[in-house]
Amino acid sequence: MRDRQARIEAVLEAAMPPPGLAPERLHEAMRYAVLGGGKRVRPLLAYAAGEAAGASDERVDRVAAAVELVHVYSLVHDDLPCMDNDVLRRGKPTVHVQYDEETALLVGDALQSLAFECLTARDLADDPAVQVRMTGKLAQAAGSRGMAGGQAVDLASQGRTLTVAELEFMHIHKTGALISAAITLGAACGRLADAETRGVAHFAHFIGLAFQVVDDVLDATASTEILGKTAGKDAAGQKPTYVSVLGIERSRAYSRELLADALSGLEPLGARGGRLADLGRFIVDRNF
Amino acid sequence: MRDRQARIEAVLEAAMPPPGLAPERLHEAMRYAVLGGGKRVRPLLAYAAGEAAGASDERVDRVAAAVELVHVYSLVHDDLPCMDNDVLRRGKPTVHVQYDEETALLVGDALQSLAFECLTARDLADDPAVQVRMTGKLAQAAGSRGMAGGQAVDLASQGRTLTVAELEFMHIHKTGALISAAITLGAACGRLADAETRGVAHFAHFIGLAFQVVDDVLDATASTEILGKTAGKDAAGQKPTYVSVLGIERSRAYSRELLADALSGLEPLGARGGRLADLGRFIVDRNF
Repeated sequence: MRDRQARIEAVLEAAMPPPGLAPERLHEAMRYAVLGGGKRVRPLLAYAAGEAAGASDERVDRVAAAVELVHVYSLVHDDLPCMDNDVLRRGKPTVHVQYDEETALLVGDALQSLAFECLTARDLADDPAVQVRMTGKLAQAAGSRGMAGGQAVDLASQGRTLTVAELEFMHIHKTGALISAAITLGAACGRLADAETRGVAHFAHFIGLAFQVVDDVLDATASTEILGKTAGKDAAGQKPTYVSVLGIERSRAYSRELLADALSGLEPLGARGGRLADLGRFIVDRNF
Repeated sequence: MRDRQARIEAVLEAAMPPPGLAPERLHEAMRYAVLGGGKRVRPLLAYAAGEAAGASDERVDRVAAAVELVHVYSLVHDDLPCMDNDVLRRGKPTVHVQYDEETALLVGDALQSLAFECLTARDLADDPAVQVRMTGKLAQAAGSRGMAGGQAVDLASQGRTLTVAELEFMHIHKTGALISAAITLGAACGRLADAETRGVAHFAHFIGLAFQVVDDVLDATASTEILGKTAGKDAAGQKPTYVSVLGIERSRAYSRELLADALSGLEPLGARGGRLADLGRFIVDRNF
């Protein structure tokens, strides 16, 4: 896992405009936002899905970078004063604190463009038609019927009480869509039988939800120092979360149920699904 | 021109998530931002370039929509309080005034994703590899080495005095890159000989600059009512413009020189370049 975290760091570094290239301040801020932090869960899932589908890490590199760039852009915009107004991310001041608000806005905008540029690299798939479909998948996962849509629902639900079903609708969009895309795009770099593809999609759906349940538990139980971002923010912001709806213990139990359900999807893959399964367990057992 | 403006309106309408689809407020705001306004210069250029390259309007539709969506997203973000803080656009209240800041942020983000999704439609080009290259071109034009980069330079130059060379660097990125992309992508829907491709790229470069020079003149000379956006904003914001650097009369003369230079690029195309030439003249002669 450490090897692949180092790998994605190098891939991201190479995908970014070099330091010193004009406009220098924007490029510096983009590097500040992207490099040197984060668990890189989405790239790790992309590599593991690629492995399950017989794709080399070289081929998955750009896909892994693309999903991480979309994730980072969303964090930068999410931290802006008009959204969560947060000052700490990955243990460092957020981009608008370190630079300024307008730079943070442009950093997010430019990182989204760069993510799509990454998917146009040569030899991402055997067939360029597959590459076109990958772009479509990422666009849907990022857009109004995916991540951005989930954030809109999140904003609209502050201070309200949601049912578990409403919470899940929100998170399937806000977090789940991009996690699913990371896995689906990684797998699309190689080849899977139809039953395997369905199994991986099943895993992706449930592990995306499990990720969010654990995130909610950690926000309520872990320290800001451990998380590298402001803890306790959900309760302070009166955000509906799994913890506010189910409580901490039932949320933890629920995350383990979701994990079991996710893992069942990997059965058709046998040993080739091993790394995805390991990552699934890591996502649920992590304490940061 | 009116026919094609009506056409792009219908294409944009069809490309947007339908009203009433959750998250409803976000989708309503996206439609508010995109539909029913604007000169649609970039789509018109895309159609005209497609025509020059022998592509049907049906094939250019999605490309025209993609460049317009990127343009609209940039306007929505540009109007935000942390950027230009503007209240009027295309004769209507800006998105953050009509809705709120966080919705405007997400509208822009989601429109950018949707633009890339448009480029994944079937049958945009004979070869999906061309479609992958189109995506790369749009991503570069939108990103930190294109439009977003130009906006960063624009922000950094407020209150400073720029040389004409510095101004041009800024505008080649901020406005020129997307105008070039509209033309290049439209042409990529069909086929051009190499000399024709170079000629069209030459036209695209100079007409992009001419567009900005005229924009600067109009900001200084036309009324808010005619423009549908706040007039006199450049001077009020101490923005360096062609007018502040060259004065109004020399700027007008410069726009006509740029037009002549642009038109010279269309010579290899003969009559097939007629519509692009007409649009070039329209861009320079417009008074809104």
